[in-house]
Amino acid sequence: MRVTVAEIVARLGGQWVGDPSQAIDRIAPLDSAGPSHISFLSHARYRAQLARTAAGCVIVAPALAEEAAARGTVIVTPDPYLYYARLSQWWAEHSAPVAAGVHPSAVIEPGAQIGPGASVGALSYVGAGAVIGAGTRIGARVTVGERCVIGARCIVHSGVVIGADGFGFAPHEGRWEKIAQLGAVRIGDDVEIGANTCIDRGALEDTVIEDGVKLDNLIQVGHNVHIGAHCAMAGCVGIAGSAKIGRHCTVGGGAIVLGHLELADHVHITAASVVSRSILKPGQYSGMFPIDDNASWEKNAATLRQLHTLRERLRALEKKLADR
Amino acid sequence: MRVTVAEIVARLGGQWVGDPSQAIDRIAPLDSAGPSHISFLSHARYRAQLARTAAGCVIVAPALAEEAAARGTVIVTPDPYLYYARLSQWWAEHSAPVAAGVHPSAVIEPGAQIGPGASVGALSYVGAGAVIGAGTRIGARVTVGERCVIGARCIVHSGVVIGADGFGFAPHEGRWEKIAQLGAVRIGDDVEIGANTCIDRGALEDTVIEDGVKLDNLIQVGHNVHIGAHCAMAGCVGIAGSAKIGRHCTVGGGAIVLGHLELADHVHITAASVVSRSILKPGQYSGMFPIDDNASWEKNAATLRQLHTLRERLRALEKKLADR
Amino acid sequence: MRVTVAEIVARLGGQWVGDPSQAIDRIAPLDSAGPSHISFLSHARYRAQLARTAAGCVIVAPALAEEAAARGTVIVTPDPYLYYARLSQWWAEHSAPVAAGVHPSAVIEPGAQIGPGASVGALSYVGAGAVIGAGTRIGARVTVGERCVIGARCIVHSGVVIGADGFGFAPHEGRWEKIAQLGAVRIGDDVEIGANTCIDRGALEDTVIEDGVKLDNLIQVGHNVHIGAHCAMAGCVGIAGSAKIGRHCTVGGGAIVLGHLELADHVHITAASVVSRSILKPGQYSGMFPIDDNASWEKNAATLRQLHTLRERLRALEKKLADR
Repeated sequence: MRVTVAEIVARLGGQWVGDPSQAIDRIAPLDSAGPSHISFLSHARYRAQLARTAAGCVIVAPALAEEAAARGTVIVTPDPYLYYARLSQWWAEHSAPVAAGVHPSAVIEPGAQIGPGASVGALSYVGAGAVIGAGTRIGARVTVGERCVIGARCIVHSGVVIGADGFGFAPHEGRWEKIAQLGAVRIGDDVEIGANTCIDRGALEDTVIEDGVKLDNLIQVGHNVHIGAHCAMAGCVGIAGSAKIGRHCTVGGGAIVLGHLELADHVHITAASVVSRSILKPGQYSGMFPIDDNASWEKNAATLRQLHTLRERLRALEKKLADR
Repeated sequence: MRVTVAEIVARLGGQWVGDPSQAIDRIAPLDSAGPSHISFLSHARYRAQLARTAAGCVIVAPALAEEAAARGTVIVTPDPYLYYARLSQWWAEHSAPVAAGVHPSAVIEPGAQIGPGASVGALSYVGAGAVIGAGTRIGARVTVGERCVIGARCIVHSGVVIGADGFGFAPHEGRWEKIAQLGAVRIGDDVEIGANTCIDRGALEDTVIEDGVKLDNLIQVGHNVHIGAHCAMAGCVGIAGSAKIGRHCTVGGGAIVLGHLELADHVHITAASVVSRSILKPGQYSGMFPIDDNASWEKNAATLRQLHTLRERLRALEKKLADR
Repeated sequence: MRVTVAEIVARLGGQWVGDPSQAIDRIAPLDSAGPSHISFLSHARYRAQLARTAAGCVIVAPALAEEAAARGTVIVTPDPYLYYARLSQWWAEHSAPVAAGVHPSAVIEPGAQIGPGASVGALSYVGAGAVIGAGTRIGARVTVGERCVIGARCIVHSGVVIGADGFGFAPHEGRWEKIAQLGAVRIGDDVEIGANTCIDRGALEDTVIEDGVKLDNLIQVGHNVHIGAHCAMAGCVGIAGSAKIGRHCTVGGGAIVLGHLELADHVHITAASVVSRSILKPGQYSGMFPIDDNASWEKNAATLRQLHTLRERLRALEKKLADR
């Protein structure tokens, strides 16, 4: 792809300063960009890179426009990172357009519906009665189980399994009696699901992922979980069954949310934390063991196992001193 | 599916009270059930829902039979949750029966054996010499490696990989020399394996999963692990190589069991805990960092890194006071 | 496979003592080996097993040669574990040779290059412009995304997804605007990638895995991560975007490395630890909550949530005593 700065502005907005005929053939980070590349300055903390970059054009916020224009062509826009996101989308559509339709190697069971403009990649499986919304892109090697419904404009990456059975068993005389999972999975519009992520079908009612949710790779979503609109979760997260996550929440990589809990809207969970109780107040929550050199960790971890005793000893000392 | 209460009791046992001709077309939770739905009361703590439910029939234990019957038709059985499990199985068999046989898109290598009544789903791969037991259901997009053996009546969900190489290398001059994994995987009867779970083949001998084990999604089972009968493990668990897990153990979601350890029968590991030593006594074991608001966590985590020093300071104080 | 001790030595080196015509038809651990099996003694701590083993031949280090020879045929070599590794490779090549070429059920997009001697397993997908190096083995049901490059002699296990989109979004008015992932994945030579592991493509530049890296199963490697040569990572590890891992590092199972961090060469991370800051000095680093019986854990965890207060109380006591 090769476009001029003027063409970019014509499509995506913003204001150019400098040479609008500057040709651009790549988007690149400031520190490695060359004369035919466009870059962006998303945070003032990268400002030092501005003077050094060889980029042919830099996308900047108004506050830095003058400084950036002093070194060459710029596009000025209120949110350069957002501008970069939209530019990258245009680039991708142009460079590697995804053809609508079902790859001949995919297996689509009778009664499944594939919406207009939707695509199903190679070697994917779509079960009976499943619904794939308009413009949704199902990658290669994806499973969409029977009766599961995916909205419009979603992106489902390779290896995803939607609609496997939830993990439900009744204990009986030391064995586990299977609870058949009769629900399905309902996914809203504009949802993206990362590679090898699993979303289980519900036991009786459906597992629900609302509009605009973004899930990274290797995430486990248990049965009857409800994830509110516009949540984002990083890789390796596990959400146990029947958890109810509010809207606009974020969950950091490797965090675990236990079952039957509730998270309010705008709750943010730090990576690798374990949510073991409901959180009803917006905010950032954490529970991560601090890393240390192994010798220090060993001493602290050993002491941690006696922490309660330490507290008792402290209390005894306090009493002793108070009594004197 | 549409059945009467009398037909349910005829098939699954229990005693009806009220109207045996009540037609049922769905299983539903108490709080959303309607007049043609059947629901169940598994714990006395949901008793308040009983009065409010619109369910056409409720499955209850004898202790609540009278109270439940006062509001409409009931089925009385000693273990309503177990009854629900069996009812759900009947429902599933009726609504979405799985046809025996190999899907035409599956790849079965020469010498693999598929037992009577077993099914292999679309786009699955069964390696040479693998054995799939009678009545076992292999989902879509599953890999069963060469020489791996799966027992009868198992359920293997989409994306599972059984029999990839264990992770074994001999270090040599800063590089890793591969140890070929010559063993296989042996899985007993009535085992269920969740979506995208991996069970590696053994280095010299086999990785073994005994009868009745239930594994959730995205679980990693390393080479030469031995999991005793009727264990259940939740999503995102990792069991490192050569760990030996007893019978009737449970492992909570996201927990890690390190390699070459042993867990006795009836050991229960709390979610997100790390088993770093053998546990030879039945019981519940935990090691999970408590979650807190981020500011509190930061203060406590910082102090935790000086915990050993705190202990030394406490000891010094104790000595000082004792010396006076 | 059936070979004599003399044939093994002729191929792999070392010195035999005893009967070179001893026939060997299996590699087995010391404790279960029989008269036609070969075993190895890798650590002096297993020395007690030497006297008891029924193995037809044992691979030993020079220091134990005399002791081992007293009980039967031995192969003497400086590093018995390495010798075993190479023997196991020979065994595997002989017992289950992997045929070069593309399985007929695999889907190879136009413009993909499959190197000489490379193999692509059943039901795998190789995207447009991807490159698979000479002698590399792609297992069954693998995805290699467009433009991703894999070096020579790599092993990629079933379910792996290379080149799904990295997880990048620009927040905008409470929604997430996708950042198209325009980079690819570049993997060096002699890399092994475990089942269902995911390696995301870079946002603008490539995600890079250098030569000799070994990744276990169910690992998440985010976009623009750089993993230095000869690192090894155990199952369920998560490496967040733009992390830069040095050479010869190891990461234990279930550990998480947060994004935009740097690890020096020869850094070793204990299982289940969370790397939340750059580590610039070689060594072993840990951060794992110690497991305990549940009652003890509960008491200690509750106290941990007041740890900072405890420290304040200790400080107050110290002051009080100093003031007297």
